[in-house]
Amino acid sequence: MSKSHRGEWFQALFSDLTSGLRKLLKIPISHHIFFVSSGTECMERIIENTVAKYSLHFVNGAFSKRFYKTAKDLGKSPQNIEVPLGKSFDFNKIKIPKNSELICLTHNETSTGVMLSLHEVYKLKRKYPEKLIALDVVSSIPYVDVDYDLVDMVFFSVQKGFGLPAGLGVMIVSPEAFKKSSLLKTKAVVTGSYHSFADLSKYESRKETPETPNVLDMFLLCNVIKDMQKIGIKKIRKLIDNRSKLLEKTVESSQFSYLVKDGRFRSKTIHVFRDKKDNSQLMQFLEKKHLIVSRGYGELKESFIRLGNFPAHSDSQFRSLISALNEYLKR
Amino acid sequence: MSKSHRGEWFQALFSDLTSGLRKLLKIPISHHIFFVSSGTECMERIIENTVAKYSLHFVNGAFSKRFYKTAKDLGKSPQNIEVPLGKSFDFNKIKIPKNSELICLTHNETSTGVMLSLHEVYKLKRKYPEKLIALDVVSSIPYVDVDYDLVDMVFFSVQKGFGLPAGLGVMIVSPEAFKKSSLLKTKAVVTGSYHSFADLSKYESRKETPETPNVLDMFLLCNVIKDMQKIGIKKIRKLIDNRSKLLEKTVESSQFSYLVKDGRFRSKTIHVFRDKKDNSQLMQFLEKKHLIVSRGYGELKESFIRLGNFPAHSDSQFRSLISALNEYLKR
Repeated sequence: MSKSHRGEWFQALFSDLTSGLRKLLKIPISHHIFFVSSGTECMERIIENTVAKYSLHFVNGAFSKRFYKTAKDLGKSPQNIEVPLGKSFDFNKIKIPKNSELICLTHNETSTGVMLSLHEVYKLKRKYPEKLIALDVVSSIPYVDVDYDLVDMVFFSVQKGFGLPAGLGVMIVSPEAFKKSSLLKTKAVVTGSYHSFADLSKYESRKETPETPNVLDMFLLCNVIKDMQKIGIKKIRKLIDNRSKLLEKTVESSQFSYLVKDGRFRSKTIHVFRDKKDNSQLMQFLEKKHLIVSRGYGELKESFIRLGNFPAHSDSQFRSLISALNEYLKR
Repeated sequence: MSKSHRGEWFQALFSDLTSGLRKLLKIPISHHIFFVSSGTECMERIIENTVAKYSLHFVNGAFSKRFYKTAKDLGKSPQNIEVPLGKSFDFNKIKIPKNSELICLTHNETSTGVMLSLHEVYKLKRKYPEKLIALDVVSSIPYVDVDYDLVDMVFFSVQKGFGLPAGLGVMIVSPEAFKKSSLLKTKAVVTGSYHSFADLSKYESRKETPETPNVLDMFLLCNVIKDMQKIGIKKIRKLIDNRSKLLEKTVESSQFSYLVKDGRFRSKTIHVFRDKKDNSQLMQFLEKKHLIVSRGYGELKESFIRLGNFPAHSDSQFRSLISALNEYLKR
């Protein structure tokens, strides 16, 4: 189940995979594509490579909080703007501190099901063009359609939107973000070792990775992207939208209740809701039907359920889920 | 091909895997077992967590050099003792600098086929008990039989000795090494973020990993270990020894020539040799037979070949290789 990561076979895979990603996600040729081992690693490498001291974190759940904690762990002095679970931000009222070097945002908070408006993110970049922006799209890719001219770093892992075995992270890095990491190096800031942007880029130019990577996952991702290309990304996004609407209809016309009250910020790919009458009954019912859903994240573990709506879920799987929910409601 | 990394299924796997590793490799219960994504990552995490300033590196090939470079990249002031490719060290003559906090050794240099004597490594620890020792066993595990009381950190990846897909690294960490990382934290030395020893250990106690790990590889490793337990580790080590002798006989009685001249330091798991008459002919001959062997590492790419002798290679595969070499010699 593996092949050597040095030599022509791997270089051809690397080429295929990066050009597939560029086509599917419209990534400009100017941007680097770096492969690491998880979304969490992406957070660490982004802070190490683009922050001397101050990052600013929009925190509205467990994953945005982890990004903030990562910066603290790495000895930086991060700042945060925090809102309660299930809420988004009032972007118009937010003033970005002058000293912020990097603004970190979680496009789709997997823990709460809040999806930020990219329009607001782009407005932020236009207002503060000199600040770098990093966007976590772990659970919204490939549904999300990013304008890479207005976001400097975008990252994801492959076990959610691409339905693949865990163990691979992908970072898309703008020339400006890369320049920042070079600047930090000249100032003797430690930007990491084998996964510094400098080392990743040196190997990228040879169509390789610094370390022995998860070759199997890269191979699988390359092929899943080819499958997605055949279907067409527009059609895939439309499918996610349609299924999302269907699920929303069921939830909103029933005793179920979304964690995210404001429909404008409700995620299309992660639906977090509960049965107001008895959530444990709902969980037991689905379990008996062998429908494996996630429980709420952290403190919401017992009170909410989380449903993924990813391209890897087949339509028939999704329809069984909707029928089961309706059957539950009709008991 | 994957399952959730939170919940009972994964915790049971984590338990099974760590107790399997402890049994197979005789790892004491006092020692931590941490899972990361590659052997290269292990080098980074070891330096970050146990070195304030000075590490000492025994350099005799590409992988020991990478360990040294990792420390430099991380802003430390590493020192090195370097010998030419294919050589081992004269341990008796080596004086360890007083300020060295960590001694880094590559048990089996995959690039040159030099295997250090563990006896010498243990003598080093006995002579300098206050210094930590880190041992890279990437290409000698599970053949190597380590005394964990005399080495503080041992690390490997799974794609060589365990014959598994790449993308998983394992670190075995002594209480002393762990204590050092806690001490560094109190001195405000940055020990990393999600893969600091502190975070790895926090999750280890819950039978989890900080990030979404390579679950598939952990599952496979757990099962390969069970298979190895059934055969018995002694029998596996004996097999590697026997095959090694067989290959050595062929090489030494012919126009072939080992890179490592001194038999005492010659690796049992990585055989690096060449055809003194025409190495490219040897490579072409094996290629035509569909026997995929590695070329020499780096500057030795054209002049040497490298043969792995790992438990995952079947006896019949190994016998075909020996026959092919004999056939080549008889042409």
